[in-house]
Amino acid sequence: MALIVQKYGGTSVGTIERIEAVADRVIATRDKGNQVVVVVSAMSGETNRLIALANEIVDKPPAHEMDVLVSTGEQVTIALLSMALIKKGAAARSYTGSQIKMLTDSAHGKARILDILCGDMEKDLQDGNIIVVAGFQGVDEKGRITTLGRGGSDTTAVAMAAALKADECQIYTDVDGVYTTDPRIEPNARKLDKITFEEMLEMASLGSKVLQIRSVEFAGKYNVPLRVLSSFEEAEGSGTLITTEDDEMEQALISGIAFNKDEAQLTISGVPDKPGVASDILGPITEANIEIDMIVQNVGEDSSTDFTFTVHRNDYDAALAILTRTGDEVKARKVYGDNRIVKVSLVGVGMRSHAGIACKMFSALAEENINIRMISTSEIKISVVIDEKYLELGVRTLHSAFGLENDGNLASA
Amino acid sequence: MALIVQKYGGTSVGTIERIEAVADRVIATRDKGNQVVVVVSAMSGETNRLIALANEIVDKPPAHEMDVLVSTGEQVTIALLSMALIKKGAAARSYTGSQIKMLTDSAHGKARILDILCGDMEKDLQDGNIIVVAGFQGVDEKGRITTLGRGGSDTTAVAMAAALKADECQIYTDVDGVYTTDPRIEPNARKLDKITFEEMLEMASLGSKVLQIRSVEFAGKYNVPLRVLSSFEEAEGSGTLITTEDDEMEQALISGIAFNKDEAQLTISGVPDKPGVASDILGPITEANIEIDMIVQNVGEDSSTDFTFTVHRNDYDAALAILTRTGDEVKARKVYGDNRIVKVSLVGVGMRSHAGIACKMFSALAEENINIRMISTSEIKISVVIDEKYLELGVRTLHSAFGLENDGNLASA
Repeated sequence: MALIVQKYGGTSVGTIERIEAVADRVIATRDKGNQVVVVVSAMSGETNRLIALANEIVDKPPAHEMDVLVSTGEQVTIALLSMALIKKGAAARSYTGSQIKMLTDSAHGKARILDILCGDMEKDLQDGNIIVVAGFQGVDEKGRITTLGRGGSDTTAVAMAAALKADECQIYTDVDGVYTTDPRIEPNARKLDKITFEEMLEMASLGSKVLQIRSVEFAGKYNVPLRVLSSFEEAEGSGTLITTEDDEMEQALISGIAFNKDEAQLTISGVPDKPGVASDILGPITEANIEIDMIVQNVGEDSSTDFTFTVHRNDYDAALAILTRTGDEVKARKVYGDNRIVKVSLVGVGMRSHAGIACKMFSALAEENINIRMISTSEIKISVVIDEKYLELGVRTLHSAFGLENDGNLASA
Repeated sequence: MALIVQKYGGTSVGTIERIEAVADRVIATRDKGNQVVVVVSAMSGETNRLIALANEIVDKPPAHEMDVLVSTGEQVTIALLSMALIKKGAAARSYTGSQIKMLTDSAHGKARILDILCGDMEKDLQDGNIIVVAGFQGVDEKGRITTLGRGGSDTTAVAMAAALKADECQIYTDVDGVYTTDPRIEPNARKLDKITFEEMLEMASLGSKVLQIRSVEFAGKYNVPLRVLSSFEEAEGSGTLITTEDDEMEQALISGIAFNKDEAQLTISGVPDKPGVASDILGPITEANIEIDMIVQNVGEDSSTDFTFTVHRNDYDAALAILTRTGDEVKARKVYGDNRIVKVSLVGVGMRSHAGIACKMFSALAEENINIRMISTSEIKISVVIDEKYLELGVRTLHSAFGLENDGNLASA
């Protein structure tokens, strides 16, 4: 008998009809001989309705009372889903974050999970009950209600799976799995059967927003097999399994292509090179609470140096103003930027042990006359910054160059 | 420094605007040097909205999950009221029934309070916080959410006041106090400054639905001074204080006139009188789960006996059918009934020590040719059953006969 944790998001429980459909799916899972713990979000629209009520009173409501308010959203869903399960003949019981003793720190609105004490829940599970848990919410050591922040229900599900040593944590969402890239850009994008935690982290943080990054980190840390599935498909698909690297399986060189359209690039060139110059330049940016993503430094002419970095596009104007001031101070030759760029990244654990990936990437882009403005590499990814207008062409070119559409890039390992 | 518990019902917190007005009133109470604990209901309409959601799934939802569902209504209100108080500069904190440790039995939907452990609440109160408590809800010894049933927020407020030994429990509602009778029937009805718990119980159970009976019983048992006030009046009225009998005050003979239009009368006459005949007659009625209110038995002709009793008007047809069968069995002379009757009651602790009240009541009605069909008396009330068509005339006649419109019936004590 396996123990399965399932998580259903807001759109999956957005109406009574969908809640009934979730109940059917949960019962089907149980009927295959599994124990089931279900984690649910608030019905879609409900959290925003509650936030709007609070904002009628005050623009920035106190975070601890905001948590008391919005946590009612999931509480409504657990009650309704439990009712639907009981109506269909299943033994079920709901648990709020406080009842499950999901202990968090006191950072209201973005609390971190410290422990799960489970309370009576494990006994109820052993007694044959389906356990229905409110996602997104917890309780601090003083007994005050906390929330984990947006997407926190994924984290709740993974944390429950880790605490209960579940065999699998299934995240039901409105897509049927993780794709090699965004199918809206590359129609030949292929659903992946399997991906590693590390790859998923790179894919997620680079813009493939299927899962919350924190929940993937959590799953990787506690080695909880995570599966992304669609809650809207009639037939039960197998989705995409996110798990640890498996030595015995054939390993794809490249798992997917992620991209990010929210960035802007800034350059300061001809800076007299001396120790501490990097922090002179980047310090004022971070002090203005602007987050920096990629950073590249080249040695330029005359033993001066060039810096290029990217920030969120919303921060572009502010960052350019700061950098211009800095340019005067450090006597740089030139400060300039561009906010019509995109970042495209190849992701794959297979590239660790295979040379030539970067070279193949660059030449594929060159063949299409796509100019690379910036390059950054890590163990399992290569990112390039290109002009925004080449986004679609670039993604499709790489997708095809690495044979992602037909699983053709297996390493000969 | 006094400790005041205030309770605001659903209409008093029905909109954000009204919640802001409640916050102003609470702060005004605090600014007079009081500690304040506020108990609130769900915003009006919210409980019904939640019940409708559940009924989309199933007609009779399991009571324990229903409690999880509907208790979110008050949780929303405590968060919003706390936000409004904090915005206006007051220190405030919300508490759910579970956080306040309002311990109840496990009778979901109609739980009874066993104890209030208060948790951190008393310390927060001492630290100068306004405490905002979710009414209507509690938690059983297993940590499951319970609700006290309709009107339970009044009971929560009284229980809080008893546990904290509050100086006064103020129930804010949409009327400005308890009246000598219903002003819609007698325009001269006068607001009472003071009434005893016992009188209030008789008034409430007889149809003046200002307060939940259970909360009045609770207040009387723990001797919590209870005040009914309007939350919609601009100026702060003093409402009606419900308290223990006060020997030193001038005592009114009659406090008010209650009436009940929901009853029907049944009679079985000419029953051969022998031991056990009362239970032969009434037994089948109670076995059918029909509640009996007044019961009168007269010795009739030929050592036979007549029984007359009243039931809720909804149960009239069923009760008449049962009584007709019983009539055949016990060889009664006749079985008949009338569902167009009303009960009118004089209530007043003063009548304990004063004779002649009943006589004055009967002759006042006789002067208006109002026929009395049934009489029942207790220590502090006299009830008569009359034809429905005489309701308004009867109430006005008695109101005037006992000088209730101008406080004219003080006992010379």
